[in-house]
Amino acid sequence: MSAVTASQVAELREKTGAGLLDCKKALDETKGNMEEAVTLLRKKLGNKIDKLSSRATKEGLVESYIHVGGKVGVLVEVNCETDFVAKNDDFKAFCRDLCLQIAAASPTYVRREEVPETELAKERDIAAAQMQGKPAAAVQKIVEGKIEKYYSQVCLLDQPFVKNPDKTIKDLLTEKVGTIGENMVVRRFVRFQLGA
Amino acid sequence: MSAVTASQVAELREKTGAGLLDCKKALDETKGNMEEAVTLLRKKLGNKIDKLSSRATKEGLVESYIHVGGKVGVLVEVNCETDFVAKNDDFKAFCRDLCLQIAAASPTYVRREEVPETELAKERDIAAAQMQGKPAAAVQKIVEGKIEKYYSQVCLLDQPFVKNPDKTIKDLLTEKVGTIGENMVVRRFVRFQLGA
Repeated sequence: MSAVTASQVAELREKTGAGLLDCKKALDETKGNMEEAVTLLRKKLGNKIDKLSSRATKEGLVESYIHVGGKVGVLVEVNCETDFVAKNDDFKAFCRDLCLQIAAASPTYVRREEVPETELAKERDIAAAQMQGKPAAAVQKIVEGKIEKYYSQVCLLDQPFVKNPDKTIKDLLTEKVGTIGENMVVRRFVRFQLGA
Repeated sequence: MSAVTASQVAELREKTGAGLLDCKKALDETKGNMEEAVTLLRKKLGNKIDKLSSRATKEGLVESYIHVGGKVGVLVEVNCETDFVAKNDDFKAFCRDLCLQIAAASPTYVRREEVPETELAKERDIAAAQMQGKPAAAVQKIVEGKIEKYYSQVCLLDQPFVKNPDKTIKDLLTEKVGTIGENMVVRRFVRFQLGA
């Protein structure tokens, strides 16, 4: 017998809405492969689970902003620990500030960990080419400075806050976590610019 | 000499804001490779063009919708031919209807051409497994019917309009194109569901 855990069965139930025994059997058959088990259940049970349920697992808010004229729009998701905080005016104001920031400063990523290594390599290459002829030690330092600058342009959390450029969005987030007293995470955002 | 066209030079100018001669030279050096030419110009000209311009090339609207409670949000971009139409109330109402549709019916793609072949193969496989033992000709027909059904679940344009399920979103679009008298394209959308 395969060693299917109770938490795998629970996950499959949540994903498909199928019964406990069906889920256990499907996971046994697929030796614990979740994706195959979903497919197997769909084959067996058909339409009953054709519409997979997608249950929310975190609290928070989805907030949007459309700039005057409708040429730029932003959607952002911010997570917090409790629904109580999601309804807090201070939390809502923070979400709105994030929308304004994204509309105005057009970041590409939420955090620097999301920047692909290929992008960083390209930026380093461009910066080094601009520095040609200078001593290697100086170049290294300047290049790393340029990478920091690059982060502050493309990563939301590293950007200077448009309403107060003395702090970054990360500073603002840390402040809010302090005053609201609950952990908060900017999960994702998207920014549409007409035709761009 | 390479055969760099005037339109390539114009595109590079638009992308970088660099001068005509610089763009021509960069494209000559990279034998017309646009991306390499951008990189080359950035190396040469540095900060002058660090912030690439992104010029809008189409008219239309970006519209958003947040469902009561802030757990689901939608952002959609709809293109039309003139800014005049983008300001038309009928066009705006259509954009709002699309937002409601996406929030309620949760499509994955705009149009069926966007569904990956692997997804279709998986759906065909599941449908065929559900039909086991039936004659091959019947199975083929039923499977194609199920694929049509699948499109009507995951593709925005193939979905029944939530406000009037007798027509699809594509029907609604065709109607609007008729009454407004200008071509319209649903370019893209995104739907955030908290924690999903």
